[in-house]
Amino acid sequence: MTSCVFCAIADGSAPSRQVYADDDVLGFLDIRPVTRGHTLLIPRTHAANLAELDPEIGARVFKAGQRLAAAMRASKIAADGVNLLVNDGRAAMQTVFHSHLHVVPRHDGDKLSFAKGLVVRRDPNPDETAAMIRAGVAALR
Amino acid sequence: MTSCVFCAIADGSAPSRQVYADDDVLGFLDIRPVTRGHTLLIPRTHAANLAELDPEIGARVFKAGQRLAAAMRASKIAADGVNLLVNDGRAAMQTVFHSHLHVVPRHDGDKLSFAKGLVVRRDPNPDETAAMIRAGVAALR
Repeated sequence: MTSCVFCAIADGSAPSRQVYADDDVLGFLDIRPVTRGHTLLIPRTHAANLAELDPEIGARVFKAGQRLAAAMRASKIAADGVNLLVNDGRAAMQTVFHSHLHVVPRHDGDKLSFAKGLVVRRDPNPDETAAMIRAGVAALR
Repeated sequence: MTSCVFCAIADGSAPSRQVYADDDVLGFLDIRPVTRGHTLLIPRTHAANLAELDPEIGARVFKAGQRLAAAMRASKIAADGVNLLVNDGRAAMQTVFHSHLHVVPRHDGDKLSFAKGLVVRRDPNPDETAAMIRAGVAALR
């Protein structure tokens, strides 16, 4: 457990830029964002992959994803679209073995910057980005 | 409603190769698969996008996705991994405006065939593929 970086984020022993929290799900910025605002949603309880993930908890993670998608559009991120993505298994490009849902804000005509983001994966001002998303989530309520 | 191809599939007025069904969710092969077995899961009731999708129904679509992921691994598709993906909005590459979850089976070392699949998107034997997945889903119960 202690070797899982997402469990460490969930229990507060590792830092993260948190943008969403409920009883079962935590959301924080991906440290290597493909686009600005790229967020990861994790179940608080460890599950290495979809096979280990309680379907009720999985459903809550997806519900949080739907809320984040709305927040990304409503916030100053001003997303025109959102990709929600689970990579399950190494063959599917999973790299951290604590199951998680990617929330990737998209903008009209961003294909080139998206392609660049797949390589560069850096946000020059992640604290500002996190604040923008938190404000978007707060505005949903 | 009648102009929505996924509603037409859901009401049986358009053909599809169905691989999954429950009270709220229908699954069928993507006619332009990126990999063999690429399946789409849709809510039976029309929702153009995540903003229109009842979160309870969205949760059921995701649960079905988790089951399909297990079926893809257990079936003769023999997936080593699975990508679950929602493209929400044109900016995020949504092309059919009835919200849906992509279930894309992956195999170890398939990066080149995956890249080819993004261009070619053709299954030479979709009926056999559908039968393999249906058998995988049936074996889960």
